[in-house]
Amino acid sequence: MHFSFLAHLECSHCGETYDHLQPQAFCPSCNTPLLARYDLAAARAALDRDELRAAVRGMWRWHALLPVLDPANIVTLGEGDCPLLPLPRLGSALGMERLYVKDESSNPTGTFKARGLAAAVSKAVEVGKKRLIVPSAGNAGGALAAYAARAGLEAAIYLPDDSPDANIIEAGSYGAELHLVDGLISDCAALVRQRAESEPGWWDVSTFKEPYRVEGKKVMGYELAEAFDWTLPDVIVYPTGGGTGLVGMWKAFHELKELGWLKNEAMPRMVAVQAEGCAPVPRAFEQRAGTNQFWEGATTIASGLRVPKSFADRLIMQALYESNGTAIAVSDETLTEGAYDFATCEGIAACPEGGATLAALRVLVDQGWAKPHERVVLFNTGTALKYQ
Amino acid sequence: MHFSFLAHLECSHCGETYDHLQPQAFCPSCNTPLLARYDLAAARAALDRDELRAAVRGMWRWHALLPVLDPANIVTLGEGDCPLLPLPRLGSALGMERLYVKDESSNPTGTFKARGLAAAVSKAVEVGKKRLIVPSAGNAGGALAAYAARAGLEAAIYLPDDSPDANIIEAGSYGAELHLVDGLISDCAALVRQRAESEPGWWDVSTFKEPYRVEGKKVMGYELAEAFDWTLPDVIVYPTGGGTGLVGMWKAFHELKELGWLKNEAMPRMVAVQAEGCAPVPRAFEQRAGTNQFWEGATTIASGLRVPKSFADRLIMQALYESNGTAIAVSDETLTEGAYDFATCEGIAACPEGGATLAALRVLVDQGWAKPHERVVLFNTGTALKYQ
Repeated sequence: MHFSFLAHLECSHCGETYDHLQPQAFCPSCNTPLLARYDLAAARAALDRDELRAAVRGMWRWHALLPVLDPANIVTLGEGDCPLLPLPRLGSALGMERLYVKDESSNPTGTFKARGLAAAVSKAVEVGKKRLIVPSAGNAGGALAAYAARAGLEAAIYLPDDSPDANIIEAGSYGAELHLVDGLISDCAALVRQRAESEPGWWDVSTFKEPYRVEGKKVMGYELAEAFDWTLPDVIVYPTGGGTGLVGMWKAFHELKELGWLKNEAMPRMVAVQAEGCAPVPRAFEQRAGTNQFWEGATTIASGLRVPKSFADRLIMQALYESNGTAIAVSDETLTEGAYDFATCEGIAACPEGGATLAALRVLVDQGWAKPHERVVLFNTGTALKYQ
Repeated sequence: MHFSFLAHLECSHCGETYDHLQPQAFCPSCNTPLLARYDLAAARAALDRDELRAAVRGMWRWHALLPVLDPANIVTLGEGDCPLLPLPRLGSALGMERLYVKDESSNPTGTFKARGLAAAVSKAVEVGKKRLIVPSAGNAGGALAAYAARAGLEAAIYLPDDSPDANIIEAGSYGAELHLVDGLISDCAALVRQRAESEPGWWDVSTFKEPYRVEGKKVMGYELAEAFDWTLPDVIVYPTGGGTGLVGMWKAFHELKELGWLKNEAMPRMVAVQAEGCAPVPRAFEQRAGTNQFWEGATTIASGLRVPKSFADRLIMQALYESNGTAIAVSDETLTEGAYDFATCEGIAACPEGGATLAALRVLVDQGWAKPHERVVLFNTGTALKYQ
């Protein structure tokens, strides 16, 4: 049997296909992300969904649906298989009977970023890239630094100079080259692009500028389906910066459908949560726009949400519209309160971005958008330890 | 089938048995820890070791061999099933061909303490205790605070006032009552004892002062056996403060033997690692003593190792002698270097205590005590994020 059923890469806009055996970035004609496509018919014939449970824990249980072709190229620190926890106290306070959190803080480096970078660094090894470069709102930099160290590759990280201390110290601690930039992640991205174009050998692993981080993140969707015995929740509330997880899970759910692994046709409504100080997605959603406008003067303490415009904005909006989802902006005050309530009511060390999902759910419950009997999953994308 | 095969509690010194349906602390006549004993013959007949792999990930897969009788009493944040990672770069630099780390940083609250407190808090719920109190060198306090919040119980934490900031902030963030003490964990313990005796309702969950934290920790041993396909490594190098994990794993290995789950009789040599500034175990080992003397003026940056005398000193020494193990003291300088090497060579965010195991292994390799072909497991007991 194939270790991976990866077939080719495809432009998410024009549909042009690209060879996955070569290093690929994004579609040069559309300037939009490429997505990995698998031979799902062959996978359907070969795989048994219920056998995956017994494999060694972690993201790579799903290797047949991940892009690495040779197991020797996998770079892992044990990412994935993060717990799905019921939230009885928070749920009861909100009148929600079936409320859960997917707690991603157990990943290496303490955040969900580990999943994407594990996939991207593994694939970099597979296609022979040795020097990896990334702009980061904080946590992606630490994750790249860790996986590059694990693989013995060089890494360069560009972070806003007002990122949380923990992110700055962390990225440096793995021996990566660290640049603190007086600006936002968009300014970091410009410097990264410039360097990757002017110096040989650098491989830009910015969000969606290469096709594999989203593949690591999509596994969160597989894990949810498995945990709910091959059905999907009614609502997923997701803190959205670059949007890799949101787009990835939406992709995963469609793959599961095509694999015939889901017990019914019901898809979740996807909710993108952003901060009021940087809310390009809710603004676009209100205007029913297909893409985002750059958000000027982005500011929020939830550093992972300080992304003025995602490179995958079109895919984010598409997931929201297709799923009958919505987009919510919450204040720094309410997201901080959300993180506090996670800790004191449930013992969960939520990051501000995780707190934002609880704040958003409160709005959705008030609006009657989320119903008491609905199965709702919040996402805590990282540990509070990075924000002390 | 029984949810748990717990049979009774037993004094680890005089063998006196105690009823597990009542709250029990330690043996009042011997002043030594109680250990949980299971009906392993019945368990052997009822359980299939290979079926455990497919259960929902985490420590509670092993519920039949854990002390909680009613699943409704389990208080969980998703602890356990932490990755066992090969260390190819560090191993090759040391000439060790089969070197691994058990990376406990993926636990809730970022350390192995979560396992023990998950068990103790669950059992507190089961026997009706509502107010939990603990002295802590740092991480146990945060873990108790989290699990108490999760269970809706009251918690009081006594920490040395020079504990890492992260520990102090963390314990408070879950809403626990926090006391900063000008002294060591032994001074904190005295205050806890005093309060538990003078105020009604407080349940002292100090290391080995109740019988269940060690039950949570022992699961690390089960997980190792499972990961190595029901054989055990040759050497386990473990940073030893209170020693719950070391004693717990040694207990687990004997339970596995009695269950008939191990493919051969080979038991690991257990290595206790401490810091030169607080080394009661290596000192006792050198003297072939059965217990430890209180270490005066304990000082080390590895706050988890700043334990002048464990309440389970006899059990720790017993595990070392019975296993043909050893005890090593390392300097703060070499343990810091160990943590640095974990990060830069392997991408693993090791805490100082984790770094100490690598420093100790270097000594053991130099001495020829650890052989190149031997399967050696280091323990990283927590995330570096708490020590930034």
